[in-house]
Amino acid sequence: MVVYKLILLRHGESEWNEKNLFCGWNDVDLSQKGIEEGKQAGKWLKEQGYTFDVAYTSVLKRAIKTLYLIQEELDLHWTPVYRHWRLNERVYGDLQGKNKAQTVAKYGEDQVKIWRRAYDIPPPPLDESSEYNPKNDPKYQNVDKRLLPLTECLKDTFVRILPYWHDHIAPSIRSGQNVLICVHGTAVRALIKYLDQVSDGDISKIDVPTGIPLIYELDENMNPIRHYYVAPDDVVKKAIEKVMNQGKAKQ
Amino acid sequence: MVVYKLILLRHGESEWNEKNLFCGWNDVDLSQKGIEEGKQAGKWLKEQGYTFDVAYTSVLKRAIKTLYLIQEELDLHWTPVYRHWRLNERVYGDLQGKNKAQTVAKYGEDQVKIWRRAYDIPPPPLDESSEYNPKNDPKYQNVDKRLLPLTECLKDTFVRILPYWHDHIAPSIRSGQNVLICVHGTAVRALIKYLDQVSDGDISKIDVPTGIPLIYELDENMNPIRHYYVAPDDVVKKAIEKVMNQGKAKQ
Repeated sequence: MVVYKLILLRHGESEWNEKNLFCGWNDVDLSQKGIEEGKQAGKWLKEQGYTFDVAYTSVLKRAIKTLYLIQEELDLHWTPVYRHWRLNERVYGDLQGKNKAQTVAKYGEDQVKIWRRAYDIPPPPLDESSEYNPKNDPKYQNVDKRLLPLTECLKDTFVRILPYWHDHIAPSIRSGQNVLICVHGTAVRALIKYLDQVSDGDISKIDVPTGIPLIYELDENMNPIRHYYVAPDDVVKKAIEKVMNQGKAKQ
Repeated sequence: MVVYKLILLRHGESEWNEKNLFCGWNDVDLSQKGIEEGKQAGKWLKEQGYTFDVAYTSVLKRAIKTLYLIQEELDLHWTPVYRHWRLNERVYGDLQGKNKAQTVAKYGEDQVKIWRRAYDIPPPPLDESSEYNPKNDPKYQNVDKRLLPLTECLKDTFVRILPYWHDHIAPSIRSGQNVLICVHGTAVRALIKYLDQVSDGDISKIDVPTGIPLIYELDENMNPIRHYYVAPDDVVKKAIEKVMNQGKAKQ
């Protein structure tokens, strides 16, 4: 039986993760901790003998830089890297730039949890005049403006990522290439939902830690056989708990 | 009249430039000075308002990293980067890994100058069993082995770069994209020879400094109108003199 090993990764901590701000498509940098996480992710992969022939990432620097740190550790700067806006984090609408704890204080924990975790309920949209409106960002100058969202729920992210998965990533895996995807929390959750056919309700319970490579073993039909993190269990547990706590007011 | 501005760049100083060793396809890292040169190149471009929509580089990390440092300065991590072996430095044959001054002492300054600067006389080839034979390097695993050289003169480099220029880079320039090419000394000289139709004899007199962006203004037929470095004149002069002196025994 053919077994493909796909490496999935959420970028290291960003400066806005650190400050507990909703980030979305805003292009913030890695924090110092995020840089360390990127290096550590590379070290874990190297120690366990993983490599990749091609990498996919978003057009946001926190993902691109995490990938670069991994390439550095694995001495793989020469591998092709494809950046695409379809692999971006979800647009977080009007919450972008706002403190998570403040948002909880204003709207209540339940409402914020809905916006963070409900499959198909997006937060209020960005204002057209917002500095965060992607229509005004040169990164997206060659993308049809009708495709550029002002807010997204997980479902929206799922729908815009899948064409890129089917047209670019899955064919690359099927051709026998070792693939690494270095993206964002919501983007990883969308891919997990697709691969494991997680229900719309159950996906809200899945949290993905930053900077810990997640291996998906796939059969020749891209059906998952099993998955596991490339890190010690206690590190994974602690990292997931940290993500789960981000939606709470007191931090 | 349409005027395209192409940014050409030789990577910053490598650890082997620093040690005065012939490098070729050996994948050495940037020196600390090379890192500073990459940052400075980005600063010059930024100060003078240059940007790019797409970048081309080799599969060698000294070029890829120089490009990354420029992307960092210009906040352009999101631009597509295409790596290709055709944009590599020339293979320096049996001279790879050897000290330039020692080689001069052994073969004489004239012979080394011929190997360094003659258009069509390659150095002795790498041995098939050499650690530097590209046929054993995973970077080139998907390249037909008949295309992988054991030595190259400038003419050989010219011949293997041009298909990539014609099929990928020139169409990108013609489509109106701002293009940056971050490559190697011999690769830049091959492109200059092609663009300016420099004779086989005269190209030996052209030296390209590391880490200083060179702008080529091109008309709609890709004919050069003029070219100039993006750096103060005295910096350019000093950097070119340094390259010219590398072939001499006493350093």
